[in-house]
Amino acid sequence: MKATAHYAHIAQALFDSVRAATAGRLGVTRDSYGAGESRGIGVLTQFAQQQGIATQVDRAGNVTFSLADDTRDRPVLCGSHLDSVPEGGNFDGLAGVVAGLLCLMRQRDEGRRGAHPLHVLALRGEESAWFGKAYLGSSALFGRLPRALLDARHRSTGATLAACMREVGADVEAIAAGEVLLDANHAAGYIELHIEQGALLDDAQQSVAIVPSIRGNVRYRNVRCIGEPGHSGAVPRERRHDAVFAAAHVVGALDEYWKQELAQGADLVITCGVFGTRAEEHAISRIPGEVDFSFEARSADPQVLTRVLDVFERTLADTTASHGVRFETGTLLQTAPATMDAGWIALLEQNARALNLSAPRLPSGAGHDAAMFAEAGIRSAMIFVRNQHGSHNPDESMRLVDFMDGVELLYESLDAFV
Amino acid sequence: MKATAHYAHIAQALFDSVRAATAGRLGVTRDSYGAGESRGIGVLTQFAQQQGIATQVDRAGNVTFSLADDTRDRPVLCGSHLDSVPEGGNFDGLAGVVAGLLCLMRQRDEGRRGAHPLHVLALRGEESAWFGKAYLGSSALFGRLPRALLDARHRSTGATLAACMREVGADVEAIAAGEVLLDANHAAGYIELHIEQGALLDDAQQSVAIVPSIRGNVRYRNVRCIGEPGHSGAVPRERRHDAVFAAAHVVGALDEYWKQELAQGADLVITCGVFGTRAEEHAISRIPGEVDFSFEARSADPQVLTRVLDVFERTLADTTASHGVRFETGTLLQTAPATMDAGWIALLEQNARALNLSAPRLPSGAGHDAAMFAEAGIRSAMIFVRNQHGSHNPDESMRLVDFMDGVELLYESLDAFV
Repeated sequence: MKATAHYAHIAQALFDSVRAATAGRLGVTRDSYGAGESRGIGVLTQFAQQQGIATQVDRAGNVTFSLADDTRDRPVLCGSHLDSVPEGGNFDGLAGVVAGLLCLMRQRDEGRRGAHPLHVLALRGEESAWFGKAYLGSSALFGRLPRALLDARHRSTGATLAACMREVGADVEAIAAGEVLLDANHAAGYIELHIEQGALLDDAQQSVAIVPSIRGNVRYRNVRCIGEPGHSGAVPRERRHDAVFAAAHVVGALDEYWKQELAQGADLVITCGVFGTRAEEHAISRIPGEVDFSFEARSADPQVLTRVLDVFERTLADTTASHGVRFETGTLLQTAPATMDAGWIALLEQNARALNLSAPRLPSGAGHDAAMFAEAGIRSAMIFVRNQHGSHNPDESMRLVDFMDGVELLYESLDAFV
Repeated sequence: MKATAHYAHIAQALFDSVRAATAGRLGVTRDSYGAGESRGIGVLTQFAQQQGIATQVDRAGNVTFSLADDTRDRPVLCGSHLDSVPEGGNFDGLAGVVAGLLCLMRQRDEGRRGAHPLHVLALRGEESAWFGKAYLGSSALFGRLPRALLDARHRSTGATLAACMREVGADVEAIAAGEVLLDANHAAGYIELHIEQGALLDDAQQSVAIVPSIRGNVRYRNVRCIGEPGHSGAVPRERRHDAVFAAAHVVGALDEYWKQELAQGADLVITCGVFGTRAEEHAISRIPGEVDFSFEARSADPQVLTRVLDVFERTLADTTASHGVRFETGTLLQTAPATMDAGWIALLEQNARALNLSAPRLPSGAGHDAAMFAEAGIRSAMIFVRNQHGSHNPDESMRLVDFMDGVELLYESLDAFV
C-alpha cells in the first residue's frame, strides 16, 4: 500500500506537469505531430532522463522508454498516445504512457524483470481531429500510413503532415514508401492502458475493465454539399438549391437508418461532428450555397460498416435528386475492427482475480493504437480505467485510485506475460 | 434617345466608381453603418458636390441629395440603400440611389420641377447581414429602431451598432429614445427603384415591374441548440445529446411544414442561412455539443407568419423532448408585410403605358426600406428592374438598358406625382 502511494504521487506530479505544459483555453490541446504533443513528450522525456531511464525516438517520431540495463531482445510493448483533441481532457492517452513509466520504475526499484524486456511507447498522432485520420504514429511504424495523408493539413496551422513529421525527426521518405519501421516479429506483445471514454464502468461501479475488441470505422473527413446561393426572400421554394436543407435531409435519413440497425441488434454509432455554412459569406438573408460536414460511422462488425457506407452513398444520391444539390465526398478513410489476444485476456483476468478486481470485459467503442498493433500481427491487449464526464471534452476526468488499480493489473500482467 | 445615352454614361461611371471603392474578394462588401457603406456614400457625395447638388446628413446618418435652388416644403422622397451583404452584388440598393440622382440632374438640366421638390435618399443599414436586423437607417428615421438593437455587434468588427452609428454622425441618444427624426406628414411620398432579387422578370422578358406589396418576416438571428459533447465512438445512441442531429431534425420538420403550407396555396419561404458547429472545438470524432443557426420565414400574409412562428416554436419543444437537447432563441425580430400606395401604382402604370413598357405587377419577396416608409404612413411605391443571377451574391447583375427603362419610368412618375 505504501508503494502504491509512492507511485501515485509520481503519477499525479506527471499528470499535473503535462497538463500545465499543454493547457488550452478550457482543457488541454496537444496537437498531433505538433507543438502541444511535443511539449507533452518533452515533459515525460525530461522526467525519464532525470530517473536514468533510457529514451529513444523511433523513425516515426514516437518515443520509447526502457531500462538502460535491460538490453534483451523481443520486448513487450506498453504504450499509448500523447496527443489530444483540441480542448480535450488530460488523461486520454497520457494515462497509458504514465502507467507504463510507473511499471518501468517499479521493475527498476524492485529489481524484477518479466520474460521480456519492457519498452514503454509514447505514440504520436492518435487523434483524428488534427489531420482527419487516427493512428498516425502507429500506422507509420507498420508501413501503413496512406501516402496521400502526408499532404493532409493541420487543422490550425495548415502545415502538411509530412512537414510536421519531419519537424519531430520522423523519416518521412521511409513512411511515404510504406517501409516497415517496426517488425512485428520483434515484439512479444503490446498492451495499452486507457481511460474508458464512455460511462459504462462508472455506472457499473468498477474501476477497471479488460477489452476484448475495438470498433472499426468509416469516415469522410469533409463532405461538401453544393447548392446555389440566393436572396432568401426573392427565390421561391421550387427554384431553391439550399445546401442547409439538403445536408440536414442527409442527417435526418442517417438518423432513421441508424434506429433501424439498432432495432435489429447491430453495433453502430454515427456522428457528423463538424457541420457548417461558410463563415465568410453566410447570412440570415442568404440561401446557403455550400455546407461542409464530416461523416463517421463506427462498428465492431465489418458488415455493418459496409452497409452504412452503402446507405450513406445512396442517401447522397437521393438528396441530389430531391434537393437539387450535389456532393463532393473526398477520400474515404477506413479502419477495420480489431480483436484482442485471447492469451493476454486470460492472463489479465487471472491477475485481476488475484488482485480482487472484478474487471469485466468491455468492448471499446472508440478506436485505439492497440488496433494497429493487433492488425500488424502483434498479440495485443487493453485495460480500461473508469472515467467520469465522457471523453474528448475538457471535463473528462479519472480518479487516481482507479488509475492505480489499472497500473497494478498492468504491472502484474507484464510480469507474468510470456 | 441622346439624353438617355448621356445619363446612362453617368450611371455606368457611378456604378463603376462605387464598385471599385467597395470591392471585396469576390463581390462588393459595404457593411451597414461601416467603412464599406461609408466609402460608397463618399463616392456619391463627392460626385454630387462636383455637380452642385446639395447634400445633407440626417440624424440617422443617411444622406439626402437635393437641388440647392428648390427650397420648397413637403418633398417627394426617392431613395434606396447603400449597404450590401458580404461579398454581394453592386446593384442591390445602389441602383435606386443612382436612379434618384439621375432624375435630380435631369430636373436641373431640363429646368423641369414636379409638384413637390425631389429629395434623393441614400439610406444606411438596410441589410440584416451585419447586425441581424434590416432597415436600420429607415427605422431610425421613424423612431422605430428597437433600443436593444443598439447593442448588437457588427459581424466582422464586433463594434456595437450604437458605436458605428455615432461614428457616421447619427444622433444615437435620439434614436435610443425612439424620437421621430422624419415627420411622415412632411413627406408627400416615397418611391424606390430596386433590382428584382429573383428571376421572374428575366423569365418573363420584361425590363421593369411595379410592386404592389412587400413581404414581412419573422426571424431569430441566432438559435443555439445545446446538447452534450462526447467521444463519437464511446457513447451509445441512447446516451447521446447530439446537437447536429437535433438541429437537423428541426430543419427537416420545417421543410415538411413548408411543403404543406405551399400545397394549401400560402405565400412562404423559410431559410436557415447560417448554420454550424463551433470551429474552436468541433472534430470528426467528437459528438457536437452545440450548434448555432439562424431562422427566417417570409410571407406577404401576416397570418402565415404567425403560424410559422408557432410551428417553429413547437418544433423546438418536440426536438427538446426527442433529442435530449435544449434551445436558446434570443430575441424575436419581426417585420410586418407592407402594401404599396394605390395612387402611386395607378400613376406608374399610366406612365409605363405612355413609355411603351409592359411593367407587370410583381410582389416583392425580399424586404425593402419602402416597407418602413409605408408603415410610417407615407404613400410609398417601388419599381423593380430586371436582374440576372439572383441577388445577395457576387454574380448578381443588371443590364444598363433595363436600368434606364426604370429611370425613365421613375422620372416621368416623379414629375406627375401630386
